[in-house]
Amino acid sequence: MKGVPQPPSIKSYDPSSKIINLPKVSEEVVKKQNIYECIKERRSTRFYKDESMSLEELSYLLWTTQVITGTNKAGLTLRTVPCSGATHSFETYLFIMQMQGIQNGVYRYLPVEHKLLFMFELDGIDQKIDEITLEQPFVPNFIKKAAVIFAWSTIPYRSEWKFDITAHKKILIDIGHVCQNLYLASESVGAGTCAIGIYDQRMIDELLGLDGDEEFVIYLAAVGKKRD
Amino acid sequence: MKGVPQPPSIKSYDPSSKIINLPKVSEEVVKKQNIYECIKERRSTRFYKDESMSLEELSYLLWTTQVITGTNKAGLTLRTVPCSGATHSFETYLFIMQMQGIQNGVYRYLPVEHKLLFMFELDGIDQKIDEITLEQPFVPNFIKKAAVIFAWSTIPYRSEWKFDITAHKKILIDIGHVCQNLYLASESVGAGTCAIGIYDQRMIDELLGLDGDEEFVIYLAAVGKKRD
Repeated sequence: MKGVPQPPSIKSYDPSSKIINLPKVSEEVVKKQNIYECIKERRSTRFYKDESMSLEELSYLLWTTQVITGTNKAGLTLRTVPCSGATHSFETYLFIMQMQGIQNGVYRYLPVEHKLLFMFELDGIDQKIDEITLEQPFVPNFIKKAAVIFAWSTIPYRSEWKFDITAHKKILIDIGHVCQNLYLASESVGAGTCAIGIYDQRMIDELLGLDGDEEFVIYLAAVGKKRD
Repeated sequence: MKGVPQPPSIKSYDPSSKIINLPKVSEEVVKKQNIYECIKERRSTRFYKDESMSLEELSYLLWTTQVITGTNKAGLTLRTVPCSGATHSFETYLFIMQMQGIQNGVYRYLPVEHKLLFMFELDGIDQKIDEITLEQPFVPNFIKKAAVIFAWSTIPYRSEWKFDITAHKKILIDIGHVCQNLYLASESVGAGTCAIGIYDQRMIDELLGLDGDEEFVIYLAAVGKKRD
């Protein structure tokens, strides 16, 4: 902040990219509306029904975790989650594996437009993401059965610009805020989430085209329909 | 985990301490039940009504953030929030400033018993906590008007025992999960929360009798009734 220009709050993209509209966020997808029940019944879920999720549900989950709802006086973005100094240093990548109305592949979320940017197809996407997350020995193969994997990166300079070396503590706490909204929102649509903190850093960064320095993945979460 | 005994999941206490029962957790305190609305309307709240909160509301907030709901096969605790490896390294301290049915002062939450342990009275508690949080220049004095301040500590060895040096990343993400539940649960009882990441580390640790090494505060949050 010492006279240095504020970095952009959003990662830019090539306007000729393939952009996918998301359905308007609607309360209609929320089957379990009661927040008390959602908090009570949330569990890290590693067993999923063999059932697709809908694009309406995905739209809601993205809205609860990272959508931009406005800007503050300083021009920083406001989102559905709190963040130290409103510096929101995150980008959301999705590995879509079982979702109605959209082809499987790797996407980036555009939080201003509330749209998806198609990045690339990935052969054997479930196998690849299972490798990247080191095959999660606790419940083998559960990753492969998820409908979608969220992978959040950080662009740390967005926060370092304001908080210097203390940014790193704040970034980690803030991604916890984000993931907890994903947990509760998933519960509210009959889905389950399992956060994933153990993964091959180099492999996922390379796959997503991140340099591992200016931007790198910090947390992942699998989401799929809950078994009855 | 290399043959070294697992550290206790809970901090012990002197059984002759003054223990305060909390009311049974009840959905009745939840005025805004709809999770979609809670997520949508949540904002970091720095303006509070001059109104006490009830012990029923506090009981609910503690339940949503740290109550122990069971143990897993490995004997680790399960709580209402997710945590890497179920290592839950947190303790919850409260600065109670405006709460019906309980005297102002500093308390520790007992997550197994769902009770409070009275630690000590503190003259000028609002002034003291304002100093510790460096008087939050963004909205001066807002801290003093909160009903209660949550201060979460970590006992990092609980997580280091399992995750070694990588524990520190996980601990920070996990306290973010906890605080997001506090945000949404506060919203659901007509209260507002503001997380506080900037504070005088030595001052708060000394006040709470923490050594700053085996246990130290990592995050705080103010809660008070929202203005209409």
